[in-house]
Amino acid sequence: MPENYTIISIKNLTKQMNERNIRLIVAYDGTDFSGWQRQSNQERTVQESLENVLKKIHKHPVAVTGSGRTDAGVHAKGQCANFYTDISNMEAKRFIPAMNSLLPQDIRVLEACEAVNSFHARFDALSRTYRYFFITTRQALPMERRYALQLWRQPDISLLNHYCCFLRDEFDCTVFASPGDKSNTRYRYIFNASFFTESNKLVFEIRANAFLWKMVRSIAGTLLFYEEKKTSPDDLFKIITSGKRALAGPTLPPEGLILWNVEYHSTGEN
Amino acid sequence: MPENYTIISIKNLTKQMNERNIRLIVAYDGTDFSGWQRQSNQERTVQESLENVLKKIHKHPVAVTGSGRTDAGVHAKGQCANFYTDISNMEAKRFIPAMNSLLPQDIRVLEACEAVNSFHARFDALSRTYRYFFITTRQALPMERRYALQLWRQPDISLLNHYCCFLRDEFDCTVFASPGDKSNTRYRYIFNASFFTESNKLVFEIRANAFLWKMVRSIAGTLLFYEEKKTSPDDLFKIITSGKRALAGPTLPPEGLILWNVEYHSTGEN
Repeated sequence: MPENYTIISIKNLTKQMNERNIRLIVAYDGTDFSGWQRQSNQERTVQESLENVLKKIHKHPVAVTGSGRTDAGVHAKGQCANFYTDISNMEAKRFIPAMNSLLPQDIRVLEACEAVNSFHARFDALSRTYRYFFITTRQALPMERRYALQLWRQPDISLLNHYCCFLRDEFDCTVFASPGDKSNTRYRYIFNASFFTESNKLVFEIRANAFLWKMVRSIAGTLLFYEEKKTSPDDLFKIITSGKRALAGPTLPPEGLILWNVEYHSTGEN
Repeated sequence: MPENYTIISIKNLTKQMNERNIRLIVAYDGTDFSGWQRQSNQERTVQESLENVLKKIHKHPVAVTGSGRTDAGVHAKGQCANFYTDISNMEAKRFIPAMNSLLPQDIRVLEACEAVNSFHARFDALSRTYRYFFITTRQALPMERRYALQLWRQPDISLLNHYCCFLRDEFDCTVFASPGDKSNTRYRYIFNASFFTESNKLVFEIRANAFLWKMVRSIAGTLLFYEEKKTSPDDLFKIITSGKRALAGPTLPPEGLILWNVEYHSTGEN
């Protein structure tokens, strides 16, 4: 079954036609979550936390659809999600305080608005933007330890951005695919990737239509690994287009990674 | 006994004369600490954590002196401390990795240098600078929740800074003294106090020779309390010089407060 295809039963479709579609922007501190996706075991997940709260508000189960999964320990500033509600007498933005008052402190709903009925947080997303934060030469403050990786050196940003020039357009991401990856295609469309400095931190930002499992952390780790060896851009190009996973650098830990934004054609607002 | 007076026995003095004095800059995330000061019960404190680590390094107890106590939940970016060491063959800055490798992740030693033998982190400090951080109109991100107070309104910064003009020079801080305060004088010398915006947050910064218990949080809470009522600067002046504790506003919670820096005549470097 192609990845961007879903089965909606006639019954569900009819149900959704009569319900309002609410679009959320959600932020979370991923430190204490086993990622976004609901799991069958007792693990704490963001999706399940949101669904638990909506169940309390609605007095019946409500499914939440996210733009995509984030891994255990990965944070989000602009995760997008949607759900269908049968509550007719409540302004969409009233879901913000209603949900936040019941949610744990490490998840906050930042926005809630009425979306067109067909809006789907995952299938309508054009692209996702991730940022990976690094503390370079100085000691990270204890307040930063959950949200950045300590690098202990000042990498050559110019060389890193030279590497980034190869991460454009339709790209075979096989080198960056985790051993467990089961995607039927490893081509992804990368809109842009770059390194820059912001508020005393080094930032790697990448925007693509979609990402393989742990792909951002693998790309960042690989580029830094070869930058430290002063690998020439030509050689780096050969490596990342080789299709050989063994040539990839280390996959960076999750704490520095934030799902920054999800881009849509329109906001889906009704 | 006056506050800035200590008894050093001849034995200790002789011991210290033969030892090196190491000055530290320490940062900590106060969330999970019962403040700076070692306690007789099982509470987790910053001073005790540092002393535990130095005991491991020295194989005997080592006392750590801080520039002052911070309360439970209050953070530090630039706490200053010193201790005497009998280790003669170790560069002062080597204490940074040696201590950090043993310390819990919520404390980091940022600097370590050799100080003159007489340097005392508390008695030599000219002043302490604190900052209190507020998120005003927008929803705080979950990553900010431990380090800022959610205010939900945009205060009149100009009026607040008008109030701050009264917090100058020798000042009777009785209004801001906690009921349990046992200081023998409530006069403190305030160098400056002001509100400003930085990186999307509202900041209250205050520098004084010393502070009463919970004084910064009481000042910030009082100024915001009267600013919200649009109290005139003249009336505010009467309130803060009234000596009536009952007129103070609420004492703000600790999470927004950071001991930002401690100022000395010299760095105490040898």
